[in-house]
Amino acid sequence: MHKIDNYEIDIKKILTILIKKKVKRILIQAPDGLKNLSIKLSHVLEKHGFSVVLSGGHAWGGCDIVFDEARLTDSDAIIHIGHHGPVRIELPKKPLVMFVPAFYSVDPTRILLEALKQASQYNSEFKEYVLATTIQHHKWLGKMLIEARKSGFNLKAFPGVLGINGLIIGCDYTAVKSGDAVIAVAGGVFHGLGAALWSGKPTWIADPYQKKVNKVDTKKILSKHLYNLSLAFDSQSFLIVVSTKPGQFNLKVAEQIKEILEKLGKRAEIGIFDEISRENIMNMGEFDAYINTACPRLAIDDPELFPGPVINPGELKYVLEKNLEDYSPRDLFLLVPRFPRTGLP
Amino acid sequence: MHKIDNYEIDIKKILTILIKKKVKRILIQAPDGLKNLSIKLSHVLEKHGFSVVLSGGHAWGGCDIVFDEARLTDSDAIIHIGHHGPVRIELPKKPLVMFVPAFYSVDPTRILLEALKQASQYNSEFKEYVLATTIQHHKWLGKMLIEARKSGFNLKAFPGVLGINGLIIGCDYTAVKSGDAVIAVAGGVFHGLGAALWSGKPTWIADPYQKKVNKVDTKKILSKHLYNLSLAFDSQSFLIVVSTKPGQFNLKVAEQIKEILEKLGKRAEIGIFDEISRENIMNMGEFDAYINTACPRLAIDDPELFPGPVINPGELKYVLEKNLEDYSPRDLFLLVPRFPRTGLP
Repeated sequence: MHKIDNYEIDIKKILTILIKKKVKRILIQAPDGLKNLSIKLSHVLEKHGFSVVLSGGHAWGGCDIVFDEARLTDSDAIIHIGHHGPVRIELPKKPLVMFVPAFYSVDPTRILLEALKQASQYNSEFKEYVLATTIQHHKWLGKMLIEARKSGFNLKAFPGVLGINGLIIGCDYTAVKSGDAVIAVAGGVFHGLGAALWSGKPTWIADPYQKKVNKVDTKKILSKHLYNLSLAFDSQSFLIVVSTKPGQFNLKVAEQIKEILEKLGKRAEIGIFDEISRENIMNMGEFDAYINTACPRLAIDDPELFPGPVINPGELKYVLEKNLEDYSPRDLFLLVPRFPRTGLP
Repeated sequence: MHKIDNYEIDIKKILTILIKKKVKRILIQAPDGLKNLSIKLSHVLEKHGFSVVLSGGHAWGGCDIVFDEARLTDSDAIIHIGHHGPVRIELPKKPLVMFVPAFYSVDPTRILLEALKQASQYNSEFKEYVLATTIQHHKWLGKMLIEARKSGFNLKAFPGVLGINGLIIGCDYTAVKSGDAVIAVAGGVFHGLGAALWSGKPTWIADPYQKKVNKVDTKKILSKHLYNLSLAFDSQSFLIVVSTKPGQFNLKVAEQIKEILEKLGKRAEIGIFDEISRENIMNMGEFDAYINTACPRLAIDDPELFPGPVINPGELKYVLEKNLEDYSPRDLFLLVPRFPRTGLP
């Protein structure tokens, strides 16, 4: 393991694979917070005789792989740093795509135990806790489970994305099952909020970077979102947003939604976007509401990107029925449209 | 001609071609200011049975054609609104790319004559004026030449981009030849500034939208740029910026520059960008200077996108020689690197 800025990358393994696969040119892609690693990795690879170019875009997740840039730059390998593997994409044979996780070297156990303590103080009836974490801290999973049990907490981890125990990503919280409360070991609010919305359970974030514990408050963000949905009840014109990111590209879903909206006498346009920015969305003209078929998190984390109410495909039913009574936040994550059972073709 | 919001589009001709070419799905691309047209055109095309999707990106020019989006959305035609034709791109056989100019219906002759009057008052020695205009106002070229001559001005138009008389675009001012002064009939400052920088001649903008005449001042913008170049004299690390826009993609140039910089013992990384934003550039980490192989206008019109001095390939010579004495603004537009004659391999 090669340590760069508190992150561990297995450079030896990378080199072995690159040599074995006779790679010549490498395109390195990294999320913004890890771009520093990609430049340092580039130096090492160039010293070993590889030709390297860097992708300048954001790299939002395992759904966002720069195949077009690889083709343009004649790169026979993409090194994708920081994510665990492909999300909603089947990888092609060429180029070679190497997912290189960056493991945060700082042990999060102490902050996990603090989170468990706070959760048990919040409600002494909690019997089982579920552990959820991102790939950065995943190598500590075993230790975290053991230390929690030693301290008297019944902490469990269940298979998540790609069958990996306890692993969560922005749009997949299948690892968060059963239990009375969730402990999300992850930096910032993003993953903890996702776990809380998906599970509906009391959730605490143990942040290994800030070394802080926070209880997630979903109420504020959900009520804002539900208010937005209610604003869309009487919308007559919709922009259906499609992303070109390989694992976010849901044109078929968009076409299905367009058809159903047009049958209902509403106006619907499909807009194709690489990056979804407020500027690009606003340039498209005025629409009453927006349907987001790209990253489901945009609707809840970045609604301000849209100049009007924004709905995910799984939430369309509520808007068309004009009824939020049986609303479930899980529908935020649903990429297939949910249409009302009655009154529609 | 179909008139939408003061613009004329030949919808009949578009339909004839689409039917003849048996097109099924169309991807419409338009610059931000003309996106309203693309939505109205979409309505017409959908009524005729075509399937339409809209490109949500910026569409900066004839260099920026969304082939990848067409492939992804299975579109067999791209309608590219507002530009005159491809720039530095050879069009493929598939998809069909239709350049649909949008002609501004308002006659600019009166404002042209006002510009000529102001220019002749500025310097009564001017004998010949050169007319430069964008595709939006090009249908008035003949009338403008005739009316100018009637009013006693020797106004000429020379072959420009694609051999079209008097036509200029952001990176090509070959239409601006000879003459004592230039009259640029175009909205805003962008094209007039380009004509003035390229020609080095006194230039007046006749703006048909604002109905205003402005004399172009290149001094302020050029002195800022030259100061930036001088800041790059001692740079040790460079980010070479490559755009994925089809007509802006200059990877070979970037590689040539990287090689020469590394031979001089400097650090150079190649970064690939779809849209070049300050955020994306800053995320790449710290560099002493930036070499822009994308749209040449970024370096002069949007230097604030780069957190350090930005140099176009044609200007590299000045930086490596640490000498601006024989600087020519034409090198701004030069996409091939100019290296010093001596002291380099």
